[in-house]
Formats: sequence, C-alpha cells, structure tokens
Amino acid sequence: MHKLSQGKIMIKVGIAGYGNLGKGVEAAVKAAADMELAAVFTRREPSQIKSSAPVYSFDDISKYAGKIDVMVLCGGSATDLPAQTPEIAKYFNFVDSFDNHADIPKHFETVDKIARSSKTAGVISAGWDPGLFSLQRLYGQAVLPQGSTETFWGEGVSQGHSDAIRRVEGVKHAVQYTVPLPEAVEAVRLGKRPELTARQKHKRICFVVAHDGADKEKILREIVTMPNYFAPYDTTVNFITEKEYFANHSAMPHGGFVFRAGTTGGGFGHVIEYSLKSESNPEFTASAMTAYARAVYRLSKDKNYGAKTVLDIPPAYLSSKSAAELYKELL
Amino acid sequence: MHKLSQGKIMIKVGIAGYGNLGKGVEAAVKAAADMELAAVFTRREPSQIKSSAPVYSFDDISKYAGKIDVMVLCGGSATDLPAQTPEIAKYFNFVDSFDNHADIPKHFETVDKIARSSKTAGVISAGWDPGLFSLQRLYGQAVLPQGSTETFWGEGVSQGHSDAIRRVEGVKHAVQYTVPLPEAVEAVRLGKRPELTARQKHKRICFVVAHDGADKEKILREIVTMPNYFAPYDTTVNFITEKEYFANHSAMPHGGFVFRAGTTGGGFGHVIEYSLKSESNPEFTASAMTAYARAVYRLSKDKNYGAKTVLDIPPAYLSSKSAAELYKELL
Repeated sequence: MHKLSQGKIMIKVGIAGYGNLGKGVEAAVKAAADMELAAVFTRREPSQIKSSAPVYSFDDISKYAGKIDVMVLCGGSATDLPAQTPEIAKYFNFVDSFDNHADIPKHFETVDKIARSSKTAGVISAGWDPGLFSLQRLYGQAVLPQGSTETFWGEGVSQGHSDAIRRVEGVKHAVQYTVPLPEAVEAVRLGKRPELTARQKHKRICFVVAHDGADKEKILREIVTMPNYFAPYDTTVNFITEKEYFANHSAMPHGGFVFRAGTTGGGFGHVIEYSLKSESNPEFTASAMTAYARAVYRLSKDKNYGAKTVLDIPPAYLSSKSAAELYKELL
Repeated sequence: MHKLSQGKIMIKVGIAGYGNLGKGVEAAVKAAADMELAAVFTRREPSQIKSSAPVYSFDDISKYAGKIDVMVLCGGSATDLPAQTPEIAKYFNFVDSFDNHADIPKHFETVDKIARSSKTAGVISAGWDPGLFSLQRLYGQAVLPQGSTETFWGEGVSQGHSDAIRRVEGVKHAVQYTVPLPEAVEAVRLGKRPELTARQKHKRICFVVAHDGADKEKILREIVTMPNYFAPYDTTVNFITEKEYFANHSAMPHGGFVFRAGTTGGGFGHVIEYSLKSESNPEFTASAMTAYARAVYRLSKDKNYGAKTVLDIPPAYLSSKSAAELYKELL
C-alpha cells in the first residue's frame, strides 16, 4: 500500500474535487517529502482534467478504497461536503474544510458515527477559520481564562459574500472584500477589550459588474440591505467594467486576526495576537488541510478511528519530523 | 482524592517552589473553576510563608504522594529543575517550565524514563518560550513547509541576562531589557524573509546600580564584551541609583513574536504572526503551566504515562470545557 521513497513511507493522498482548493492540495502534496498524490476524483469528465495524478470519476470513488491513505475533500460547505464527507468516510480516511460554523456540531456527529463504524479516521473543518484560528481561540482561552477573544477577518475576499451578490438580479460578476476596521483592531491590540458591534469591527467593499441595461440603483439597494450579509455593516458598492474585474479582482487574498486579551491574579494585562496574511486563500487552506492529512494518516495507524477536529490533534502529528527532532529544533 | 464542587471534579494542584512563578500559579489555580490549590512546598521555613494553602517543607514532599493530582514545579532551570523534576516525577504527575533550550532533549529523556517507570504523567517546558511559541513554530512549519521561521523576544526583562550582569564585580542590582529591532520585525512581517544576524534582530539595554566606589568603566567593559550574552549585540549600559532602580525597574514585562513566512505552489506568499505582550512574565508563564496541569491530569486519567511536551498535547486537553462545547463555541 505504501511506496517507499529512500526508505521513507510515502502517504498516498487522494483529492476529491479539483477546483482551486484541490489544485492547492496537489501543490501542497508535491511540497511534502513524505506524501504523494495517488488520484484525483472529479464530477467533470475525467479526460478533460489535467493533473499530475490519474483522474477518475467521482462516481467510481469507492472502488479505490484501500488504495489511498487519506482523501482530502475539496468541495464547498454549502452543498458538497454535507453529502460527500459522510459518503467518503465509509471508505477512506479523510480531511475536509467544512466551514459553516453553525452546522459543525451536526456535521461532526454525522461523520463521526460513520467513521467509527467504518474504522476510518478523519479531521473535519481543517482550514484556517475554522482551523488554525480555532486553535488560537482555544489556546488563548485556556491560558487566559479571565479575558476576551476577538476575531477579525480580512482584508480579503469572502467567497460567501461574493456569492450572495452574484445571486442579485442584474449582477454578472462580483467580488466582496471584508475589511477589518483599523481603529477596532488597534483598541483590541492595546488590551482595551472594547465591546464591538458587527459594524464597528468590519466594513464590506463590493466590486460589481452589472449586466447591460441592469438597474444599478436597485442592485445597490438589494446588496446593502441584504440581511446578515450586508445590512449590519457599512457597505460600499463599486460598479466596474468586466475588463477591470478580470484585471484587478481575480486574486483571492485573505487573512485575519485572533486576539486574546486577559488579566491575571496580580492585575497584570496580557495580549496574544495571531494574524494571517495570505495571498491565496485556497492555497493556504489547502496547505493546512495537507498538514492535517498527515495527522489523519497517523490517527489511522493508531487505530484511533472516528472524526476529530483540529482541537483534538496533538500538534506533533502535523509534522513529518520525529518527536526527538521537534524537541531539539522547535521547543 | 477529589473534592466535588457542585458535581464537578476539582483537580488538586501542588506548587513546588513559592517565588514569583509559584505565586502566579496560585493565582491561576484560583481563576480556574475546576482546580484547587492543595499544598505549597518550599525550601524556606514553611511557617514563614503565607499562602492560601497549607505550606510544607520541600524535604517532606514525597509524603504527599497520592494526595495531589498534579505538581507544578516553579524552580529555576539552571539548578532547581534538573534535580527536582526527576525527583518529583517519582511521586507525582508534574508540569515544569524548563527553559534551557539546548538541554531540553536530555531533560526530557531523564524525566520520561522515571515517569514511565513510576506511572506518572507530565509536561516539561510548558511556559511561553519554550511553550506557546514552540507550538507556533511547529504549526507554522507544518502548514508552510517552504518557508522560514523567525522568533523575536521582547521588549522585556531577560532574567538570564540580568543575572549575568549581577555576577559582574561591583554590580549591586541590574536589569536587562531585550528589545527587538523594529526594522527587522517589519521586514519579516512583510514576508521578505531576510537573513538576520543576532545584532540585526535584538538590542540589549541594561540598567545597573553599582556598589559605592566601583569602577563603572570596568563594569561597562565587562558587560558589553561578555561572550554569548552581550558581545554579539549592540548593548547600552545605564548606571542608575538604587532608588530609581526600585521605582522604575521592578516590573517583569515580556513578550515577543513568532513569524512563519512561506510560499505555496502557485508562488503565493503567506505570513503568519504570533505575538505576546505580557505585563508579567511570571504570571503569564504560570497561567500557561496551569492550563497544562489540566492536560496532565487528563493524561494520567488516560494512563498515558511518561513525559510529554506541549507539542504532544491535544489542544482540547487544556480546556475545562467538553469537546461538544468547544466545537460549538470555538471552531
């Protein structure tokens, strides 16, 4: 089952879904000395897809059970993963980046039950938020129990908000940048622990290409009044040409901040800040998922079956180095 | 063995060594709803020590085996912990903050062997560096394998460097501030991944009270030329009065930065930054150790004996919350 490369075990990774995220996983696997890409599964016509690994139809995925150590699921959280992760967990160890925060407990429960009975191991929600940011929220709260946590997102492209704009009638293309407000970030950084509303934390900047003849006033009104997505924020809408859209708004940068500010016994203040600035949200998310794929491989070798989250994984499981190397180099 | 407080198990913590760090652990245990301080052990005369818990002589510590769930060792790394942690691991589960980076592998091996044969569990080097900073170095390297890690310390008081000055003839009191150089921090923050010498990363600022009649020129020369501690850095020495020393230099702030800058497949750059600003190094270190004491309690319940490091501990073990609560609130 495992190819040996210079005496090292190679973890055979599969990719389920070959969009931006799947391509990011392919690149991350290539960068990992202890992993190799065994196969890509797609819902498109496999012969139309170019990848460094064999490409198969998603419909045939169960036939590859036993031939892939860890399947990395690269579908979306809205409709793909709620169906795919439970199905794939029947046959494969798995990692997904399910990011619908409110539905994580339900997704976990569904997947965990199947994985336990199928004797597969996996990690759900293994991106950066949920994922690395969740870890920081946990460490911060555990170390400074008297305190407050704040997460800011951006500056970066929110896929969910961009999609919401694209559903507005008359919109041809759209991208939405989430921007944290510097004065809010600074107050939190200084340990002031302010109470902040949604509007005080982030603003939203939209770039929209309207269809010819569309009512721009109406599009604008529909966007800025959209409940949950835009109404609670100061939102700016810029109408641009298709040419400008493709020239200046094709990148997918993202990032954010997690702060924990707290006080200890003697009245002393402490502020922990974690931040990410990424030029490519899908490539960074893919890199995190690939590190967790290594952890999942180890869980399965431990016969530690079922679903886990990043909060449950010993950090050393993410590294290709031995415990002795890590103690020497990183402690 | 465990007092129940409103149906909750209370973890009985012991403190071995009652200086600034020990007092910090006392405060952190008080702030934890699931912990209580069972006893303090001191090498001083126990009747002279005021604590919220009974105070006993260090010499009698083995008599309390079975009465304390986790012993938190609060001695220094130079001479206390190399002797105390192996001894205490014979009788108790344990946490220490051994911070002599070069000697960690040896300390780990010694303590691990004893803990395994004594069926005790413990975590060594559980402060912020080594400790929380080590975690960030690991996560950063695992997620961005093509990249570089930089750690900066300060601005804050370095106990080791202050001690080194105090050993210079003619010095009565001394404190040393480690200061990261803003231009170096900024270059790393921007993802430029510069190659930096020790001198380009930090400067050292010393405040010294000399004994009456001491040769200040000689003190100055001895400090700035001291190998390893000061020679590789730009060092400033300020002679001050005893009054000023106690008025302005009694606080123990510290902190620092861990950066990981890396590149992924498509040539995209990513920078992760973790920083700590603490008004009290001992209270923050104590808070981290206390969170790891909770993890150690759980390891012992799992019969997962031996020594561990922060790199080996599932993050959720640090929290008093259940997995379900954590998934709901923090993922």
